[in-house]
Parts: sequence; C-alpha cells; structure tokens
Amino acid sequence: MQLNTISAKNGVSFLMRTGERLRVVSPEGQQVSDLFCFNASDYAESLSCARTMDAAESVFVTAGDALVSNRGNPLLSLVLDTCGRHDLLMPPCREEENGHVGCYENLSHAFSPFGIGADQVGPTFNLFMHVDIVDGRLVIQTPQSRPGDEVIMEAQMDLVVGLTACAHLQTNGGSLKPMLWRIEPSLR
Amino acid sequence: MQLNTISAKNGVSFLMRTGERLRVVSPEGQQVSDLFCFNASDYAESLSCARTMDAAESVFVTAGDALVSNRGNPLLSLVLDTCGRHDLLMPPCREEENGHVGCYENLSHAFSPFGIGADQVGPTFNLFMHVDIVDGRLVIQTPQSRPGDEVIMEAQMDLVVGLTACAHLQTNGGSLKPMLWRIEPSLR
Repeated sequence: MQLNTISAKNGVSFLMRTGERLRVVSPEGQQVSDLFCFNASDYAESLSCARTMDAAESVFVTAGDALVSNRGNPLLSLVLDTCGRHDLLMPPCREEENGHVGCYENLSHAFSPFGIGADQVGPTFNLFMHVDIVDGRLVIQTPQSRPGDEVIMEAQMDLVVGLTACAHLQTNGGSLKPMLWRIEPSLR
Repeated sequence: MQLNTISAKNGVSFLMRTGERLRVVSPEGQQVSDLFCFNASDYAESLSCARTMDAAESVFVTAGDALVSNRGNPLLSLVLDTCGRHDLLMPPCREEENGHVGCYENLSHAFSPFGIGADQVGPTFNLFMHVDIVDGRLVIQTPQSRPGDEVIMEAQMDLVVGLTACAHLQTNGGSLKPMLWRIEPSLR
C-alpha cells in the first residue's frame, strides 16, 4: 500500500472513519508535521492540546496516550511511536514569521473544502517537534526523528484531519522536507 | 471604588472597553482565578493560551506581557503583577473532576447571556495558579499568592471577559476562597 506525499511546506486534509489508522512517516528525519482535527459530524468539537495535556498529566504524549477534544473525548489514540518526542505547546507556524506560507495557512487552506474557516484551526499536535522548556522558556530544538521514524494513530470517532509538512526552518533543523502518510484499515 | 466579589466556586462575565483596566485581587491568598475573553465585536476571536506562550516565548507571563488572541492580536496587557506566578497550560476545572461545578461550567454559564456557548470556552489564563513542569509532567502546586496579591490588566480591544473563583480543591491549597475584581477607568 503506497504512502502519500506531502511536499515540503504543504498540507493536506482527509476524512477518517472510526477505527481507521493514520500512519505518518518522516522519510528523511528531522521534519515536523502539524496535525489538527475535527469531529466529522460536528465541527464545534475539535482537538484541544490543553485537554490532551491535562488527560496525559504531561506536556508530552506518546504511544498509549490519546489526543483529546475540547469536550474531553478521545479523537486519535497513539498506537505506535518510533520517535517518542513531539510537541503540544507551540501553535502552528505562520506566514508572518516564516516569510512564506506556514502550517496555519496550509491547514486553513486544506480544511476550506469542508467549510471550516481559519479561526477554527486551533493549537496543533506537532509530530516530531522538539521543544524544550528551560525555566519556563520555550526553546525550539532540532527534531530527534531519524529517517523512517513513524507514528500510527487510530481514530476514535469519524474525523476530518489536517496534516502538514512543517514550513518553519528552525523547527526542522534548517531544511524543509516532505512527509509521508496513509490511512490503513481498521483492525477492530 | 468598591471591589466586586466572586464568591467561592463562582464566576462572572462583564464587558471591558479598550484602555479600561481589570484589577483582580486574591483577598486571602492561595486562590486561583480562571480568565477567558472574547473580542466583543467578533466572538470568533478569543484568548489563545498557545499564541500567548508563543509571543512570550515562555509558558509563564507576568507584567509586561500580553494575552494574545487566536488571530495574534493583544487582548489584555499585564501592567501589574504582585505575585509573579500564573498558569497557561491547564484547562479550566470541570464538574466531572471536582464533584461540584467547575470553572468551565461557571465560565460557560457566565458567558451565556452574550450568546456564547460552552464549546467556545477554550483554555484559560489561570491567575495565581502554580503548576510545575517536572520532566514534562504537570504538577499542581499550592498558589504562591499571599493575601492582597493582585494583577492589573489593560484591555487592548473591547472585550467580553469571564472570570472565576476556581472550584478545584487541589489547585487552591485545599480550601475554596472568594476573589475580588473591578474595572478601573482608562489611563490613556
């Protein structure tokens, strides 16, 4: 089963049915992918990074944890994580800071066919992003991911998902690379 | 000028005009107050704790920092802070965890006369809340605030503001206490 490519500095959106699995692969390593998602039946329910951290009692999540909505419901369960370091604190990068299109604009554009507007795109789950908290300061580090590192997430409800190949140079170790993804059938 | 009281486990909402100042006082100390706010002209613009942390490059804010919206605009500037320790990471407490009404329900109820629904109440700025991050884990500590500690914030646009006396026992050092507040005229 072929993987789909998100070219550097781009984004996509797609539907997931309950039980389906999303595999996200970093083919070259050291590349971040921002994820945001909505309940496919009611866009007023969407990813809440704060509720996710509260549920995990941690600023970090990995296999065994779930991404949680603003209503406290699990959206995606992390079932495999070969890297182990991701970020829930930093909002998606934006054109005004990059000098070119950012994850925020890429997600907003990708969601537009679903009738979802830019104001509805909240803080993202940033796969492979490496942020340290040093005495409270947020310090962006080079991702720890190696070529082929991957994350698998299982949908806990029907979802509209947006995913990017992050467009912020510092976040990605100084070079902007593609990401790979595919939807895999439910194992339930 | 008299201060208004939020009794223990309660919440209020009010309008602020650009330049007006909100003074929040902890009369007994060791008590948290959760704040959320909206652009009074367009409720699709509201507080973003993630954008606030990104702008401050820190998980902490104090005098000199601003609370920022999902569109990146300053909402409230912190002009005085006699405590120095607050939280932007934890979402408001909820009835399901408290066994009685929480800040989330109190804010949702307080905003309802403005036609604002519960799903629009996002992660809050938690005045005087003391959360430590220990190897990524979120650890709720007793607030560092003493009786009479206060914060003053100046509105950077017309706002609808919600404010609580937090209802979560552990967050407030084991006892639930009132908070005081008032709107003060613009100094501009």
